Amino acid sequence: MQFKVTPWEVRGKINYEKLVKEFGVQKIDNKLLDKIESITGELHFMLRRKIFFAHRDLNWILNEYEKGNKFFLYTGRAPSGPIHIGHLLPWMFTKWLQDKFDVELWFQFPDEEKFLFKKNLKFEEVEKYLEDNILDVIAVGFDPEKTNFIIDTKHASLLYKQACKISKRITFSMVKSSFGLSEQSNIGSIFYTAMQAVPAFLPSILKNKKIPCLTPHAIDQDPHFRLSRDMLPKLGYYKPASIQCSFLPPLTGVSGKMSASEKETAVYTTDDEKTIRKKIMKYAFSGGQPTVEEHRKKGGIPEIDVSYQWLRYLFEPDDKKLEKIYYDYKTGKLLTGEMKEILIKKISEFLKEHNDKKKKAKKNINKYFEWFNFKSLP
Amino acid sequence: MQFKVTPWEVRGKINYEKLVKEFGVQKIDNKLLDKIESITGELHFMLRRKIFFAHRDLNWILNEYEKGNKFFLYTGRAPSGPIHIGHLLPWMFTKWLQDKFDVELWFQFPDEEKFLFKKNLKFEEVEKYLEDNILDVIAVGFDPEKTNFIIDTKHASLLYKQACKISKRITFSMVKSSFGLSEQSNIGSIFYTAMQAVPAFLPSILKNKKIPCLTPHAIDQDPHFRLSRDMLPKLGYYKPASIQCSFLPPLTGVSGKMSASEKETAVYTTDDEKTIRKKIMKYAFSGGQPTVEEHRKKGGIPEIDVSYQWLRYLFEPDDKKLEKIYYDYKTGKLLTGEMKEILIKKISEFLKEHNDKKKKAKKNINKYFEWFNFKSLP
Repeated sequence: MQFKVTPWEVRGKINYEKLVKEFGVQKIDNKLLDKIESITGELHFMLRRKIFFAHRDLNWILNEYEKGNKFFLYTGRAPSGPIHIGHLLPWMFTKWLQDKFDVELWFQFPDEEKFLFKKNLKFEEVEKYLEDNILDVIAVGFDPEKTNFIIDTKHASLLYKQACKISKRITFSMVKSSFGLSEQSNIGSIFYTAMQAVPAFLPSILKNKKIPCLTPHAIDQDPHFRLSRDMLPKLGYYKPASIQCSFLPPLTGVSGKMSASEKETAVYTTDDEKTIRKKIMKYAFSGGQPTVEEHRKKGGIPEIDVSYQWLRYLFEPDDKKLEKIYYDYKTGKLLTGEMKEILIKKISEFLKEHNDKKKKAKKNINKYFEWFNFKSLP
Repeated sequence: MQFKVTPWEVRGKINYEKLVKEFGVQKIDNKLLDKIESITGELHFMLRRKIFFAHRDLNWILNEYEKGNKFFLYTGRAPSGPIHIGHLLPWMFTKWLQDKFDVELWFQFPDEEKFLFKKNLKFEEVEKYLEDNILDVIAVGFDPEKTNFIIDTKHASLLYKQACKISKRITFSMVKSSFGLSEQSNIGSIFYTAMQAVPAFLPSILKNKKIPCLTPHAIDQDPHFRLSRDMLPKLGYYKPASIQCSFLPPLTGVSGKMSASEKETAVYTTDDEKTIRKKIMKYAFSGGQPTVEEHRKKGGIPEIDVSYQWLRYLFEPDDKKLEKIYYDYKTGKLLTGEMKEILIKKISEFLKEHNDKKKKAKKNINKYFEWFNFKSLP
């Protein structure tokens, strides 16, 4: 089966090697990891495990940083449903970047994106999820003093004019090939990428100086930045750099991308322990053997075991512990049911803590929007 | 020569009969004029002279009005240069409509439009003209208590979301055929018509009830409203009605449209008497005969005489006086030079008064923007 990766659709068994070539991004090699470590003092497990595996201009961003030219981070979330743990992955890494590099984060909530791309979605539904999504993002722990939230429709009096500047340099034929749009696509969806480009240079406008931008994101978002990288220098700004991750596998198998609309493939931040247990026991694709006896003899295959992969991607940051799980499973010492129990415990603890933070987030919302109250554009 | 009329280009000798058929608009007939007169008590000379000659759903708008369902007016100006007298024509008529029907006017300044459609135009240049254009509009005399100004980029936090709703129902292939855009058109220009549609239903949103909309405009803007008339009912609003005028002829001849970028074709509101005299004496296309002797004998042709046409379109509201000028010219009694003198005197007086009002307009600007300070959208 052919795989397909666009910002709006991920399908088939993804060949990341092929994707790297097709998109024209660079793989993160060990030399680059050493360089990050020399600044941050340690490597996040998502870097050690090559979950963040590709980039554009990361070397340049680090060089500028070492020269004292600090970058800012830019990532985002298009609200249209509840947050699942696959969404949290790049945000947790982004928080690590913010802490280690001590930099600003601009977080965009493009509340029009899914509205424009999903046939039956109404703004009312988007709004229903917007505030809840915001609370999930705050719960990740971004520094309110250094983090600014942008809501596209709400802050359009700053964004739209800048998006027009970008849009003037992007033709329909360019978005057609980059995003797989057609003559039957609606004109809002055609314009949209210009809105997504704006946060990559908005801080440069507000502070009236060129500031490098680093965007951590899942690799399916690359087409947006590929386009804006071509355009921004023409407007006098730096090309945004990026650092890109692969997709947390859906519960149902280690290919494709978790989908908020297919409920059995994902664990939501709102799921309670009972739901988590049920989902993982019922749906988590197993790399184990059909019988306990056979499993003890032949061992399991952690590479295709979703529970193991979730531990690797998100819930077991300790390499030693993860390695032990890997070998115990591979040698048949650890059964699938036991692996699932480990994961259930980890996720439940993680989400309990996440939801405690989410409850407290409510009273802090305004802090993330203060930038807008006091800023006006030149 | 083929003529061409789009919102961004008017070329060739316009055949208005053909245009009416091509655009699918209705001509304003005497029955409709009677109906207007029965409400307003008199007819504006631009109606009597069929300068406003076409419409969409004007009958319906008048019926609703008579039932007590008042419409609002919507027109606009895309700033990119100084105001010439051709711009003033539909606005003067709009003021008359506002006074006679006692209705609200929403006046849009789409400051991104010309930026998106003119290759080398920068936002800085647009902004230079924006405030001056606003003063010209105020000088026309719109009631500040009943007139609201919209600047697209400044008020985008209200407009953009509504434009997204419209845009979701308009495909690229629709704008391609309506506006003559291509795959090489920029994505901002493709999206733009959605922004122009918003003021046609924004008052309905702000007041949370369906309000009929009447848009007075030159016929080249019809494609925008043709599209939005199809879309607005799907969002639960009325189709905007329109009343459309032909173009004030450029100085250089009675075909085509006055252009702000071809200075010799237009008289600007900023032109002083000396400049006006020079332009009209030098450029105003004459329907007169080569020699005075011949003119006295054969008479002139007022139909192609630009000075006469300007009197007819704008500067001689008195039908009796205009008729006398017509016959005096046609019979050779009135010479081209004398016709030009009449026009120069009329324009100079008109613009003197206009500029007095423009000077006073400055202190009133804020009144036209008060709607935005107090409104927030549901």
